[in-house]
Amino acid sequence: MSKPLILVTNDDGISAPGIRKLISLMRKIGQVVVVAPEGPQSAMGHAITIKDPLIYNEIEITDDYKEYSLNGTPVDCVKFGIHRLMDRKPDLVVSGINHGSNASINIIYSGTMGAALEGSMGGIPSIGFSILDYDHNADFSISEDYILRIAQQVIDEGLEEGIALNVNFPKIVNGNLYKGIRICRQAKAYWKEDFAERTDPRNGKPYFWLTGTFTVNENHEHTDEWALENYFVSVVPVQFDFTAHQQINKLKNWEKDV
Amino acid sequence: MSKPLILVTNDDGISAPGIRKLISLMRKIGQVVVVAPEGPQSAMGHAITIKDPLIYNEIEITDDYKEYSLNGTPVDCVKFGIHRLMDRKPDLVVSGINHGSNASINIIYSGTMGAALEGSMGGIPSIGFSILDYDHNADFSISEDYILRIAQQVIDEGLEEGIALNVNFPKIVNGNLYKGIRICRQAKAYWKEDFAERTDPRNGKPYFWLTGTFTVNENHEHTDEWALENYFVSVVPVQFDFTAHQQINKLKNWEKDV
Repeated sequence: MSKPLILVTNDDGISAPGIRKLISLMRKIGQVVVVAPEGPQSAMGHAITIKDPLIYNEIEITDDYKEYSLNGTPVDCVKFGIHRLMDRKPDLVVSGINHGSNASINIIYSGTMGAALEGSMGGIPSIGFSILDYDHNADFSISEDYILRIAQQVIDEGLEEGIALNVNFPKIVNGNLYKGIRICRQAKAYWKEDFAERTDPRNGKPYFWLTGTFTVNENHEHTDEWALENYFVSVVPVQFDFTAHQQINKLKNWEKDV
Repeated sequence: MSKPLILVTNDDGISAPGIRKLISLMRKIGQVVVVAPEGPQSAMGHAITIKDPLIYNEIEITDDYKEYSLNGTPVDCVKFGIHRLMDRKPDLVVSGINHGSNASINIIYSGTMGAALEGSMGGIPSIGFSILDYDHNADFSISEDYILRIAQQVIDEGLEEGIALNVNFPKIVNGNLYKGIRICRQAKAYWKEDFAERTDPRNGKPYFWLTGTFTVNENHEHTDEWALENYFVSVVPVQFDFTAHQQINKLKNWEKDV
């Protein structure tokens, strides 16, 4: 039986330690094609590139491994990888390991999860991996075994059509093992926005950096934020239907009133 | 009673005919603050700007009307508008009128709907308006009355916390009136990707433009695609929880197995 074909991408860019680790892990269980952004593409969400042309570079091409960089977003990488660079549809799309959390509402801003959702929109089982550690030299050691087992389980069992997994790892503390996995829902949270103001020395005009404080609204043990807070690996099954189904009947009278 | 405070944005840029039309309509029913991208930001989804500073320009400032451009994404415009430029939280966020469809899965790529979802994430009733007409000189005439009535209804009745409306208008044919409104769910559809290849004359290297064919998988009359195909205005109530709730119990055994 041939090895599963795995597309690997991320949003921190092709040289980030997170994707280098993910590539080395996926090569243990499959035939790997990497298509990743040339540089950082964090917070690009589900953006795609339509105003500029896409250009790729071959980084390494061998019989059993192919690596390309692309001047686009994470979602571009999935589309271009599947439809231009790969000989056949992959069996798995993995994205990450992201340096920073994509739990709770962070998913909607996340390029890492944009790529995973794009894979699932194409009917391919897809997983995004993130660790709650922004350090360039983040410690992935305890995560490695979970990544291998989760990826293998998805390859073996598949996921239902249109489903991706949003997997987040706590920051490793003193090399302690995680307590296990929790299957969760996305926690209710928001960013309390702030904008740091600076002055341009050339013209005296203000400019602003987006900052903010992540604020969790609930501490329910079914949520990803609870799991991570309690040193579990959080796994949220996610999908791309934005419909608020329970609202449809409530608004039905608008068909007459408005 | 003071007029409702309305934040207007879009993704086609501040000079697009769609937002100019939307501004003129909203000024009939509220006090308007415009914060819109300097130029086109289509297909930016929920992207935010974190690598570059944000700079705004005052376009027009009077007692009852304020208009700013921002060098950011549609979601940046909502965040920056609410937290930096407006004196108080708006009563309504409207985005559009987008030149082109945001029905079905197009919502996930859409900067117009990214802005509306960001409004709803901030607890503000929010609406994205789009018309299935890419023409710069698109005919909005039949849409105007619907836009006013839907916006007024949302101001009067509100929307449940975390809900936004994705409103799409058919392209106007021969000036015919629409058949009415349909409250819909997002249709199952996908983009059959393609990439148009060109050759860079300077170095002979290939570059690619993302193209593709939008393909609807179903023709159910509860969907937005059906409504639009049948000359109704489609209204999809949308939300930002990506959790596939029905999958949580199915995957629960992974907590032990993996």
